[in-house]
Formats: sequence, C-alpha cells, structure tokens
Amino acid sequence: MKALVYHGPGTKSLDEVERPAIAAPGDALVRITHTTICGTDLHILKGDVPTCVPGRILGHEGVGVIEEIGSAVTAFKVGDSVLISCITSCGRCANCRRGMYSHCASGGWLLGNMIDGTQTEYVRIPHAETSLYPVPAGADPEALVMLSDILPTGFECGVLNGRIAPGGSVAIVGAGPIGLACLLTAQFYSPATIIMIDIDDKRLAVARDFGATHLVNSRRDNPVTTVAALTGGQGVDTAVEAVGVPATFELCQDLVAAGGVIANIGVHGAKADLHLDRLWSRNIAITTRLVDTVSTPMLLKTVAAARLDPSRLVTHRFALADIMEAYDVFERASQTGALKVVIAP
Amino acid sequence: MKALVYHGPGTKSLDEVERPAIAAPGDALVRITHTTICGTDLHILKGDVPTCVPGRILGHEGVGVIEEIGSAVTAFKVGDSVLISCITSCGRCANCRRGMYSHCASGGWLLGNMIDGTQTEYVRIPHAETSLYPVPAGADPEALVMLSDILPTGFECGVLNGRIAPGGSVAIVGAGPIGLACLLTAQFYSPATIIMIDIDDKRLAVARDFGATHLVNSRRDNPVTTVAALTGGQGVDTAVEAVGVPATFELCQDLVAAGGVIANIGVHGAKADLHLDRLWSRNIAITTRLVDTVSTPMLLKTVAAARLDPSRLVTHRFALADIMEAYDVFERASQTGALKVVIAP
Repeated sequence: MKALVYHGPGTKSLDEVERPAIAAPGDALVRITHTTICGTDLHILKGDVPTCVPGRILGHEGVGVIEEIGSAVTAFKVGDSVLISCITSCGRCANCRRGMYSHCASGGWLLGNMIDGTQTEYVRIPHAETSLYPVPAGADPEALVMLSDILPTGFECGVLNGRIAPGGSVAIVGAGPIGLACLLTAQFYSPATIIMIDIDDKRLAVARDFGATHLVNSRRDNPVTTVAALTGGQGVDTAVEAVGVPATFELCQDLVAAGGVIANIGVHGAKADLHLDRLWSRNIAITTRLVDTVSTPMLLKTVAAARLDPSRLVTHRFALADIMEAYDVFERASQTGALKVVIAP
Repeated sequence: MKALVYHGPGTKSLDEVERPAIAAPGDALVRITHTTICGTDLHILKGDVPTCVPGRILGHEGVGVIEEIGSAVTAFKVGDSVLISCITSCGRCANCRRGMYSHCASGGWLLGNMIDGTQTEYVRIPHAETSLYPVPAGADPEALVMLSDILPTGFECGVLNGRIAPGGSVAIVGAGPIGLACLLTAQFYSPATIIMIDIDDKRLAVARDFGATHLVNSRRDNPVTTVAALTGGQGVDTAVEAVGVPATFELCQDLVAAGGVIANIGVHGAKADLHLDRLWSRNIAITTRLVDTVSTPMLLKTVAAARLDPSRLVTHRFALADIMEAYDVFERASQTGALKVVIAP
C-alpha cells in the first residue's frame, strides 16, 4: 500500500509499504477513507518530536471502515464506519480511569508517532474499542476527520483549560487551524469578547467569519495595548497560545488579566521565559495539555445538532497519490490560504 | 511612636515617627499588640518590590486593639481585639465580589507596601470592616498573628491552588515558614505523601515534626530521582514552590506528574525558564497567587477546633525596641533556627 513515511528531520516521501496486520486481540485494522495533515506533523518534520523515529508512517487523524478486528473486539464489526481518535487509550489504566487518556499507560499519542499512522490506506488501531467512535448515520465523513484531533484539541486545551465562560474575554494568539478550532468551540460558552491575534490578514478574515469579535494583526498593531484598550486596561480572562513558539507564549503573559488563565495549545520545541517577577502575585494559571479526546462524544453531538460545523475548517482536498503536494499546500498556508487539507486514499 | 522604616534597598532603621490618624470614614486605627516579620519584608529590603518606596513603615501582619474608628465603621468598636489581614479589601469592587481580595480596586497588599504597615505601635487600616477580623474569645493573640498572612498564604497559594487531595502526593520545595505553613494546612486534606525538600537539616527536622512523610536534603540527595523513586516514577500530584528563586521553580517542573499542579507561593524578583518543550504535553497547571485571605474565617475555626496550632511557627519573641535584632535573627535563620519572630510593642 502507499504511505507517507517520515525519514528524519526535513525528509518525507510517499512510499510503497507493507499493509499492517492485527497484532493483538484488541486491535482493529481500519481502511482509511479520509485523513488529514496536522501542524504537529510539521513539528515532527522540523525534528521537534524525538519520539517519532525515521521510518514512521505519519498521521494521527482519520475516518475509515473496519476491515478486520481482533478476537477481543465486540463493540465494532467488520464494515463499520469509524472515527479514529488521535489518542489511543486502553480505558483501564489509572490515567484512563481519571479521563486523562493522553497519558494512558499503554496508549496516548501513538499514531504517527510511536506506531505507524493514518496517512496511508490501512492503519492498525490498538485498544480499538476505546480509541474508535462509530460514525453517526448521515454524518459527512470528510468533516468528521476534524474530530480526530483538531476540534477536541482546540476545545479541551483551549476552551476547557482556559475556563472560557459566559460574558468572559478571550484572546486567541494564532488564527491557524487550531486557533480557529478553539474559536469555533469557545462560542459554546458565549464569551463576550473573542480577540483573534495573527500576522496574516487572510486568516484573520476567516476568524471574523468564524465569530471573532475583534481582530488584531500583530504586524501592524501592538496586541498588548490593543487588548488593554478592549478590556478596560485589565487584560483578558483567557489567553490561548495556539502557535507553539516562545514569543507567542510570552505575549500571552502580557495579555492575561489578574485571575485569568493562559491556556497553552501549541506544540513547543523550546523553553520560554516565564516572567514570575511580574506574575507571582497575579493569581493566574498556566495550563498545558495533550488532548485527551474525552470530549469526542460530546463534540459528535454538537455536530449532529448543527451547533458545530467542522467542514468549515476544510479548504483543500487531495488524493493520497498527491499527498506530497497536499503537504506543500498546507505548509505554504500563508500563500495558499489552506486550513485543513483532506486526503482521500 | 517607634516604627521600623524602610530607607531603600539594604537599609532600614527603627525611627521615631508621627502616629497615624483616621483619614477616611471606613478607617480604623489599631494599636498593635503583636506583629512579625515576613520573608516578603526581606524581598523588599533586597529591592525586589518596586511599589514599596523609601520612608515606608514595613509590616503587613499583626494583632491589636482598636484605638479609634471612622464614622462609617459599625462592625467594630473602640477596644475590640482584632486580627489584621495582610490584604486590605473594600468588599465592594468586582474583584472583591469574586473573592479575589488581593486585587481589590482600592486595596490589595497595601500595608507595609503602598501605605505604612504594622511594625510599629499604631497602624491605620483602610476598609476596616472587611480587612479586620475579631479575635475570638480565649484565643492566643500571639499565635493569631500567623493568620495575618503566612497561614492563609500557605493554604490558599499552596494547598488550594495545588489541589491537594486525599491520597495525593505533594512535594514542598522550601521548608521555611511559608513552606511549613503549607505543610501544616496540607494535612487538612489527608494527602498520602508529603515530601519536604530543603538544604537545611534543622528545618527538615521541624518539617518531620510538623507532619512531613519524607525529607530530602537537596544538598546531599538528588530531589528529582528521590521523588521519582517515592512516586513510582510518576512525580508528584502537587509541587509547591515555597522559596522564590528560579532554580526552585525550575526544580518543580522536574517533580510534577502528568496531570499535576505546580503551585507557586514564592515572591520572585526574576524570570524563570519554563520548559514548554517538555511540559506542553504533560497536562499540568502552574498557578500563581497573591493571597486573598478569603480563608481567614475558616482558618480561625480550625484554630478554635484545635485542628491547627499556629503557635508552632513562633520561635522567637522581641520587644519593638529590639526589632533590628529580630530582623537579624530572622535573616540568619539557618544559624538561629528562627521560623517566625513575634514582636510585641
């Protein structure tokens, strides 16, 4: 089968590889119908994720059809349409039982990292019963790929950790796909103000369309003074870091109000300065999180109820044969206007 | 009257100053019977607290007797014994009404910082009705001085922010008075493990006495490997920073388990490195807080119920005339074994 294989920092190719097989009784083999590329895949390609070694098939998002199941799997049968969670979870270990699937003792972020991923034709999913979700009847499978990772990540790491609340003020630093996923799901909780900060006017225009109340192009305008002016000098209740570099995390420290939260979503490859000399007395919280995907069933309900339209994030479509071009379009998002690119094997 | 006056970094003296007077209808004038010195006063003397200007009477802790009240004060009368909160709060602004007294619009940490403090004979207390507490009948006023700041700070910034819970594991970095206040109040919530980390064996011995389950002298033993060994390689649910320097804050990042909290109590004068490259995926929270003293009424009940004995923190006693010597004993704690020194004018 064809697969997008990581060959070390800066190098990837579409290779012919062997089709995986069921390896444990809890496994399922899923034939991918739709997958996508994540900003995290670009971090891997930059060399930021040392757990992902050369030879790995990338990709941790996808929708597909069960081709084969292990002997212990009773919740699914061959032919079922399934949503693949980016987080594999056993459902039984101490961390799973407290809802922290991301740190499952035998799971976590495995796909396209510790084991072969979804940017291919077939993928082996361990702990299938607790790592796959049935695709609801009538759902658009292409749109549901957005529920593998990006929407639960924006929601859990940004909205829930950020304690976004009715009447509150939010600044989201970074209007890329993950910042936009946070913006879409933030509106479940009716904040009064959502300020979107980016350097790309095209992305800011999308953010306006997606419900941002204020836009700041931080190349043109000082985000600190602008946010101060919009919040009566207080700063925001929630500052969401949705980029993953030290400068944007440090900016959040200047945006957050006393008593507020800095919710980090970004994947970071370097340390950042924490200005404890200013922050020790500010009653703030800083949160980090690898998405647990505990919210996936809830998000599926919001999609069914038309409270969330994941298809708005999809801008481009490619065949698997053209995945190298899909990466190129995704990486050059500032020129191509790409948000999420869907790949259909 | 006599008062301990700050004259700029490194300089203080016991001066003859004018007795304060009621300046607003909500004020009370309190005759101090007992006060103390805080680690924060040493931070001021190092020049870490720019809001405190030369000429200021230091001190934000105390117990005394109301000498005079403003016309708007009805909750207290002349002659009442009162506990002075280190945080002045109006009780009416938005931050007060959400329990964040520390960021009161016309209060916060004023005493011995923005206005004259308690290391003297008489102090003016603004917003007296919401910044003073009646001393319960039969209470030991000397012990209650520990409820002005250090016990609510250890409890709110360490225990509450740190989400210390039954069966949990806690590491407290710094066995000074504030770390010990956290240790005492952590036990309200019955954690399974409380590991105390310091470089001073004398203080660690006190921590053992106060209820620590494990002691680590970080001059002799590596705290990271020791804590890992004590927690099955996971790290602690709560790491409390109770020193206020970058190295101890950075140590906490190596002690905390996935899903855990780093609760900062320390007063910091410099930035610290935040290792987001390791922490972005660890589902942790980092909290900061200037004590709100919302827990003072609760702590008074635990003292009355003999669940908390604040007098254990008091090691030395001085007359106000000897406050320069009291500072010396407090600063040289590693030789003198001082925890809190009580000064009685």
